[in-house]
Amino acid sequence: MPSIDVVLSPSLWELVDAKDKNVVVIDIFRATTTICAALNYGAEKVLPVLNAEEALTYKQKGYLTAGERNGQAIPGFDFGNSPLLIQDKKLINNSLALTTTNGTKCFEMAKACSPHNLFAGAFINISALANKLIKDQKDVVLFCAGWKNQINLEDTLFAGTLINYLKNYFSWDQDSVIIALDLYKNAIKTGMTQYLQNSSHYKRLSGFGANDDMAFALQMDQMKKVVVMKQEHLVLE
Amino acid sequence: MPSIDVVLSPSLWELVDAKDKNVVVIDIFRATTTICAALNYGAEKVLPVLNAEEALTYKQKGYLTAGERNGQAIPGFDFGNSPLLIQDKKLINNSLALTTTNGTKCFEMAKACSPHNLFAGAFINISALANKLIKDQKDVVLFCAGWKNQINLEDTLFAGTLINYLKNYFSWDQDSVIIALDLYKNAIKTGMTQYLQNSSHYKRLSGFGANDDMAFALQMDQMKKVVVMKQEHLVLE
Repeated sequence: MPSIDVVLSPSLWELVDAKDKNVVVIDIFRATTTICAALNYGAEKVLPVLNAEEALTYKQKGYLTAGERNGQAIPGFDFGNSPLLIQDKKLINNSLALTTTNGTKCFEMAKACSPHNLFAGAFINISALANKLIKDQKDVVLFCAGWKNQINLEDTLFAGTLINYLKNYFSWDQDSVIIALDLYKNAIKTGMTQYLQNSSHYKRLSGFGANDDMAFALQMDQMKKVVVMKQEHLVLE
Repeated sequence: MPSIDVVLSPSLWELVDAKDKNVVVIDIFRATTTICAALNYGAEKVLPVLNAEEALTYKQKGYLTAGERNGQAIPGFDFGNSPLLIQDKKLINNSLALTTTNGTKCFEMAKACSPHNLFAGAFINISALANKLIKDQKDVVLFCAGWKNQINLEDTLFAGTLINYLKNYFSWDQDSVIIALDLYKNAIKTGMTQYLQNSSHYKRLSGFGANDDMAFALQMDQMKKVVVMKQEHLVLE
């Protein structure tokens, strides 16, 4: 039986051996949700980049640019990090360079270990992702982006929800897996949206008027394909 | 209202500003339980040290020695890390130098920030500790030792149980506090011992025959005093 592990913060990434495993990067509010939504709407490919300067060099190569710092839009970019506003006709068949506070850094860290088995995880395609991971029968590492290296509620909750899909097909020995799964069990009792309203990032984004983005990010199974990295870009598969 | 924060692994310690706050080191299986039990039984003071060599230098100064590496006793030491076996008559009015895989390192890290406000947390004196923290009205950081920098279930559960005592007297903005409190709410439904039987460290220690130690570590309020650091030593207060 393949194994599953979960990394609740980038600061804990170095403790895990992720080499050649299926790695899922999770940044629910909002990077990985935005990536999935952009590709599902028709973008050709999404390149996660570390900072605004790097994104702007890709603008010169014909990429559209998207991103945020500390939850807010970056001047001169085509888009912010809203999974709703990114669904724009000018995106169709175009390439996008994206930089965010937490999520894009995780792709950089993870691709060094597992460049051909790197997925973007989001509630909007959770069933497709779960089915792919079960079918692959490879060891899985769930990599939560958190907020500035702090553990956050929404990424841990997504990890727990995905583990709930996978639990009959994988084994684990790390307590973090139990903690994430328990969080999921608690959250479904109260409802995920209500549960997350106590989280630090929900409050932060709510202050920026991003409530609609968060509501969208919690809608399960809005798309049927998974998002995987190929040649440094995230694409539909 | 003072704030409460929880650090679920030593790898996350550097994200927190603990300067002059009340810091509680938590290593339930078994370092902080053993420290509390030793002092309650009559030891004069306990010195946490980083390694076996350092402990043995204190043996030459008249200290008794206790400790483990990877869960097992260290050759040449007076005691292992059992909170039951440490309750031995030769301990009374004597000093103890203790080194363990996870817990003693955390005292070293924390005392650099808050040398006069550093506590050892254990279920066996949780009510006394909670009352002290409430009375002090200072900001609190709960520092879970984990297992080799991985988050573990029993330390997170203790943090959640202590937060449940403190929740009406403290505010928080970190999601880790919510996660720990949720874990506690789940665990009391099934019973703490049963709940922890799925944890990685319970299984590891059970393999070493330490079931009685773990049962003891989960007995609440066996002593009425708190354990605090004074002049680098842990003592009763």
